[in-house]
Amino acid sequence: MTNNLSLNIAFNNGNFDEISKIQIPVDSLAVNRAYAVYEFLRISNSKPFLLEKHLYRFFKSLEIMRLSISFQRIDIEQIIIDMIEKNNVSDFYLKLFAIPDTSNKSINESAFFITPFQFIDYPDELYQNGANLIMKEYTRFLPEAKTTNYVASAWWQYEMDEKQAIDVLYFTGNEVFETSRGNLFITKGNNIYTPDKKILKGITRSIIIDLAKEINPVSEQAISIRDLFWADEIFITSTTKKIMPIVNINNSMIGNGKVGLIAQKFLLLYNQMLKQN
Amino acid sequence: MTNNLSLNIAFNNGNFDEISKIQIPVDSLAVNRAYAVYEFLRISNSKPFLLEKHLYRFFKSLEIMRLSISFQRIDIEQIIIDMIEKNNVSDFYLKLFAIPDTSNKSINESAFFITPFQFIDYPDELYQNGANLIMKEYTRFLPEAKTTNYVASAWWQYEMDEKQAIDVLYFTGNEVFETSRGNLFITKGNNIYTPDKKILKGITRSIIIDLAKEINPVSEQAISIRDLFWADEIFITSTTKKIMPIVNINNSMIGNGKVGLIAQKFLLLYNQMLKQN
Repeated sequence: MTNNLSLNIAFNNGNFDEISKIQIPVDSLAVNRAYAVYEFLRISNSKPFLLEKHLYRFFKSLEIMRLSISFQRIDIEQIIIDMIEKNNVSDFYLKLFAIPDTSNKSINESAFFITPFQFIDYPDELYQNGANLIMKEYTRFLPEAKTTNYVASAWWQYEMDEKQAIDVLYFTGNEVFETSRGNLFITKGNNIYTPDKKILKGITRSIIIDLAKEINPVSEQAISIRDLFWADEIFITSTTKKIMPIVNINNSMIGNGKVGLIAQKFLLLYNQMLKQN
Repeated sequence: MTNNLSLNIAFNNGNFDEISKIQIPVDSLAVNRAYAVYEFLRISNSKPFLLEKHLYRFFKSLEIMRLSISFQRIDIEQIIIDMIEKNNVSDFYLKLFAIPDTSNKSINESAFFITPFQFIDYPDELYQNGANLIMKEYTRFLPEAKTTNYVASAWWQYEMDEKQAIDVLYFTGNEVFETSRGNLFITKGNNIYTPDKKILKGITRSIIIDLAKEINPVSEQAISIRDLFWADEIFITSTTKKIMPIVNINNSMIGNGKVGLIAQKFLLLYNQMLKQN
């Protein structure tokens, strides 16, 4: 993930500014205590994609973390429109940040930033042949809030790179929950399952559940490690990965080792939504 | 913890600078992924207290987190001497930070900062009457490394304040480990116990183990929740709390509810060391 030179205009808690001007005081709780909330969304055809859902979750994360910002949803919508215009790029990503303001001594008061990101889509080859996961026993603290507390996945990145894995799947005891940056779906026959507890409820996850409603409703329920390896198809969902088919976990082949029809179908529908945004 | 106006000179990755000048780029891994290492130590009588042990642990944390800084131990010792002189205060604290440098794209390269802190000692009343803890099921990720990943304890601070607890004690299953910012000791008769695994090995903890050697060696071993409530005395140790007697955990009285002789004795010896620094 790198910043494109033409993607340089950020929102700096009240003003538009160059990204490099957004600097966090070293005594901020974000730096000292990993206490900060964020959101990550896509701009497609110069319009934010699924903005309402992202803003709803952003404000829910703020509430869980007892943080407040001095901008309303309607303000943020306008700021995003202005940022798209100022950056003059039609397809990129935005990261929203709420970072506790140490100049004000209350933990509740947060500064608010939006930074633009270029992100090159994952290679087609991964969607055609499927990707790998590694598994680790871990539970994120307050998983339903999108905080910056990602040290575990950042630390495991080394092993992911070594094993050419796209993400790390978290389990506790015999139950699997989510990947470090995505939601898990498994299929058996025509049935589709996804965990419902101890997860961040992903925006792409909610789209899959909506799309599936008319054909075969997704069962939101606990998934065991046995269920996982017994699945016909596995895929993970996220804003950047979209619907990423998984064919191998911890060096064990999933299903027949090939990308399944259900994942392919959802990816097609999702890419259409993105195109029509 | 507040910054005294006279404690204003920090070390800014190569130069001495005002604290407010130390700003972390918003795209730093410290801000985005809670990926940073720190150390916290006391200056007493214008000299760093237990510096060698703190530097040893700092470099161990860096190694675990696969981070490097471009300063050697001997450089840091000199920087600290200079900082004490420039700030011209005889009793305060220093925080050392290693923050991955995003201008260089390698996760291993870190910027290095030292900031001064005023810290008013905990009130005598707590040492005389004892303090309270709350308990939560939680394990820190890579507990043996001192990272900025403290979101859980920062979030539980609200409940600690409400219940007038000084810290939160972490357990998993039936075993207790450490508090969010300290180590646990329990006594039964003349015997002293402290957990040995899944903890940050505290500097003050190591001092207690050293001091106890000649009288009654500390047993470093697993401690169950049952052991905890069966103890005669409990105390926690940290750089800022020194040896803090605990008389109440989750609203249950510990021992006879009074501060014990063993904790008092260690506190006396520790305060002497600090005075003679």
